Amino acid sequence: MAEVAFQGERGAFSEEAAVAALGPGIELVPCRSFPEVFSAVAEGKATYGVIPIENSLTGSIHTNYDLLLAHDLHIVGETELPIRHCLLALPGVRLAGIRRVLSHPQALAQCERTLRALLPRAELVPVYDTAGSALILRREGLRDAAAIAGRRAAQIYGMEVLVEDLADSPENYTRFLVLGREPVVPEGPAKTSIVFAAENVPGALYRCLEPFATRGIDLTKIESRPVRERRWEYLFYVDFAGSAHEDRCRDSLEELRGRTTFLRVLGSYPRMAR
Amino acid sequence: MAEVAFQGERGAFSEEAAVAALGPGIELVPCRSFPEVFSAVAEGKATYGVIPIENSLTGSIHTNYDLLLAHDLHIVGETELPIRHCLLALPGVRLAGIRRVLSHPQALAQCERTLRALLPRAELVPVYDTAGSALILRREGLRDAAAIAGRRAAQIYGMEVLVEDLADSPENYTRFLVLGREPVVPEGPAKTSIVFAAENVPGALYRCLEPFATRGIDLTKIESRPVRERRWEYLFYVDFAGSAHEDRCRDSLEELRGRTTFLRVLGSYPRMAR
Repeated sequence: MAEVAFQGERGAFSEEAAVAALGPGIELVPCRSFPEVFSAVAEGKATYGVIPIENSLTGSIHTNYDLLLAHDLHIVGETELPIRHCLLALPGVRLAGIRRVLSHPQALAQCERTLRALLPRAELVPVYDTAGSALILRREGLRDAAAIAGRRAAQIYGMEVLVEDLADSPENYTRFLVLGREPVVPEGPAKTSIVFAAENVPGALYRCLEPFATRGIDLTKIESRPVRERRWEYLFYVDFAGSAHEDRCRDSLEELRGRTTFLRVLGSYPRMAR
Repeated sequence: MAEVAFQGERGAFSEEAAVAALGPGIELVPCRSFPEVFSAVAEGKATYGVIPIENSLTGSIHTNYDLLLAHDLHIVGETELPIRHCLLALPGVRLAGIRRVLSHPQALAQCERTLRALLPRAELVPVYDTAGSALILRREGLRDAAAIAGRRAAQIYGMEVLVEDLADSPENYTRFLVLGREPVVPEGPAKTSIVFAAENVPGALYRCLEPFATRGIDLTKIESRPVRERRWEYLFYVDFAGSAHEDRCRDSLEELRGRTTFLRVLGSYPRMAR
């Protein structure tokens, strides 16, 4: 049975992503922080690690890109999860009895309009984590409070789902990466993630995209990031459709290498169907 | 005296950015949320709004890009602020007496290693806001607790700075935008922010960058964002050096318009010297 490291309390969205990516038959290894997830995989305490890399509302998680560069792990898979904030309470608690709503500040903010309409007099109490808010209710037996967390947290802490989808805007998706110690050779539709640095001169990025454009390779993500106190000025994160083991992708990467000051292939992996 | 709207409690990093961008002689208008900042400017309750747009560790703030697209405001300035987390306490409180440290979960995480070394037995208590943690200490007169917030919060709430720079990693910068109701024509070095959408076909982005590359216009930021449930598939956020009022930039934008399904100039503004 594969051990899978993730960041957060049991019932966190990362745990949901781990099960979505690797199936229910895994042993879950909760970690306190993202660096701990990377270390767990690097040191063999877990076979895989699952980390969030970008969210449709809050953007890319640069700290996890930094950790990818700091470790020699490989991206071996991806999965995308709709972040569905549910209103949870202990069994038997009804909406009318709720005086306080606990959750991570971001979740409270994303549900604020709906909460105000549903529970106009409830106090919103920010806590450190979404799944953690369910854990607090369970541990302290709070019957005048609700938590905002995912459906999985409801199962794990034996809570009832009072409202299924509480968010004001439905466009909340997080993309997660699966990390392993060895690279994989994907069969079928694949995706490759790379990081490169280019000199900060006009047209530099344009020249770096040419090797992909001339071969008709589709980019699925591009993002620049200024780098301070290093010899290069910009890092670029690029994902493209295809595997680094295909000829045309290998040729593109070879050509790109000559136009960059730094290039690293973070991994080729099966592309998730949308 | 110009009224300037920002999100957060008095003493927030956004307030610091507002003063850095517009000088000390402004009237500060604290708002509860980012949408409220936009509304305050749109409805004339404030002359300017100051919003964070990207952080060196946590990436771009997509929700603020969404709000830029939803409103008819213009970017009229930018400023970049080092986020320096200080350990604050009420006057007379000493390190040895601190049992709890309050702050936003992200600030606690960014200072965790240093905190563990400095105060190994202190409990870390997540609250909704950095400046808010200083406010709580002041309001409740807590003398066994410290807060992590900026130096400005210390001034505003009459706290002492026990440790000046608590963060484990020094690379924490946030870029802020200044918003106004009318566009400006910048004198001297300028920057322009645009948003455009391109068809999701191989080489599309490459073709969109050509108008800038051929004119030697330097890009300072690029980021793609998948768009769901809309007619286009990808939005691109691009910043470039120069003003939309210069001929070569205007020509580039004209050429770009023909290659995109959507293009909006968010503003040209004086470029901050680094």
